[in-house]
Amino acid sequence: MDDDGLVYEGKAKSVFRTNVAGELRVVFRDDITAFNGVKKDTLAGKGEYNARVSAFFFEYLEKNGIPTHFIRMEDERTMIVRELTMIPLEVIARNVAAGSIVKKFPFTEGQRIEPPVIVTDYKSDEHGDPSINDDLIVALGFLSADGLQEVREMTLKINTLLKDFFAKAGIDLVDFKIEFGRSGDTICLGDEISMDSMRLWDQKTGESLDKDVYRQGKGDVLSAYRKVVDIILQTN
Amino acid sequence: MDDDGLVYEGKAKSVFRTNVAGELRVVFRDDITAFNGVKKDTLAGKGEYNARVSAFFFEYLEKNGIPTHFIRMEDERTMIVRELTMIPLEVIARNVAAGSIVKKFPFTEGQRIEPPVIVTDYKSDEHGDPSINDDLIVALGFLSADGLQEVREMTLKINTLLKDFFAKAGIDLVDFKIEFGRSGDTICLGDEISMDSMRLWDQKTGESLDKDVYRQGKGDVLSAYRKVVDIILQTN
Repeated sequence: MDDDGLVYEGKAKSVFRTNVAGELRVVFRDDITAFNGVKKDTLAGKGEYNARVSAFFFEYLEKNGIPTHFIRMEDERTMIVRELTMIPLEVIARNVAAGSIVKKFPFTEGQRIEPPVIVTDYKSDEHGDPSINDDLIVALGFLSADGLQEVREMTLKINTLLKDFFAKAGIDLVDFKIEFGRSGDTICLGDEISMDSMRLWDQKTGESLDKDVYRQGKGDVLSAYRKVVDIILQTN
Repeated sequence: MDDDGLVYEGKAKSVFRTNVAGELRVVFRDDITAFNGVKKDTLAGKGEYNARVSAFFFEYLEKNGIPTHFIRMEDERTMIVRELTMIPLEVIARNVAAGSIVKKFPFTEGQRIEPPVIVTDYKSDEHGDPSINDDLIVALGFLSADGLQEVREMTLKINTLLKDFFAKAGIDLVDFKIEFGRSGDTICLGDEISMDSMRLWDQKTGESLDKDVYRQGKGDVLSAYRKVVDIILQTN
């Protein structure tokens, strides 16, 4: 595979054209970054772990009625997906207060948030990914009021599905970030669902099984990621 | 009047206890600041202008069904108000894109926003007044879902009343910031409605009649503020 068809190079994934119209190839790289790229490393195997977990959850959500861009895995780190017209939003669902929300607002780290909250950032490197609210999302034409409601309901449903899945494995789903796009008139889940995009806490030990291990330098990143892969494997 | 009863000292207003329970004295000072206090001046007469315009609009809105904290003027720059339990939010309504929204999002300066958008900031010096959305407002207990809806409807009604008022004087209400508080179970408009808290553009000349004259150093601040006072006086 050469780089000729490169459509998009993210911090940890590269997206390429395929020979098939409407299908893209997503390669999960071994790169890991934090603090907007200030901290940066390569961890052999990390791309494969994230690809596997993402593929598993896309299939799991599809089975439960959530349209996603997932088509199939091509190899261990390469996913074939439906091409979406991406909506430039990062949709974040939070069940427990952690990370930026604790710095910005009077929440305590670890505080349960019930019902869960959904917050949205405008995905734009140029603008620094600012927080955006529903009125602005509609005014900027990113979603209609109906589309907004649909994204909200899908996000809450995804949250319930993922939270219940992890609870059975003794893991708290603290929060996660997802992205949506359009395939024709259908709003689909795109991007990834991985240890880079979720916060997962072991219910017994409090241990992080996600990118916070890397962000905060608190242990072996790959072995934390591997634990999530093992949970997936046990389920299959 | 001494400073003994000082309850709160803001950037341009000081709030004191009175001898009457549940009533406060608000003194509109001649101080003017911008960029979070980095730019700072005193302009003789500015406090009086803002007090007058605020008093006028509080009465105008009360007459039109909006509960406010306003009771009466004590002197040219001193307002007696009902004491409210303030809700720590800055509620901003925007009819035209200007200021921070143009830096943070892909709006063009001067672009009409129809229908208007409402955005909210969490009012906290400690946290740097971050943008906050409805889910977080409810999760933090600042407002219930019903209270949120009430604040939204009041803000849209205030926007219509102020916009129509200024339109008759040939002025565009670009945006404004308001704050709410509770008096018992009633949500009331508090704080001020002045040239410090609105953006007003002369429809013919495009001239600013608000704090942007000070922020951007584009002319005589007092004479711009005075123009708004003159409009009020012509209406009375």
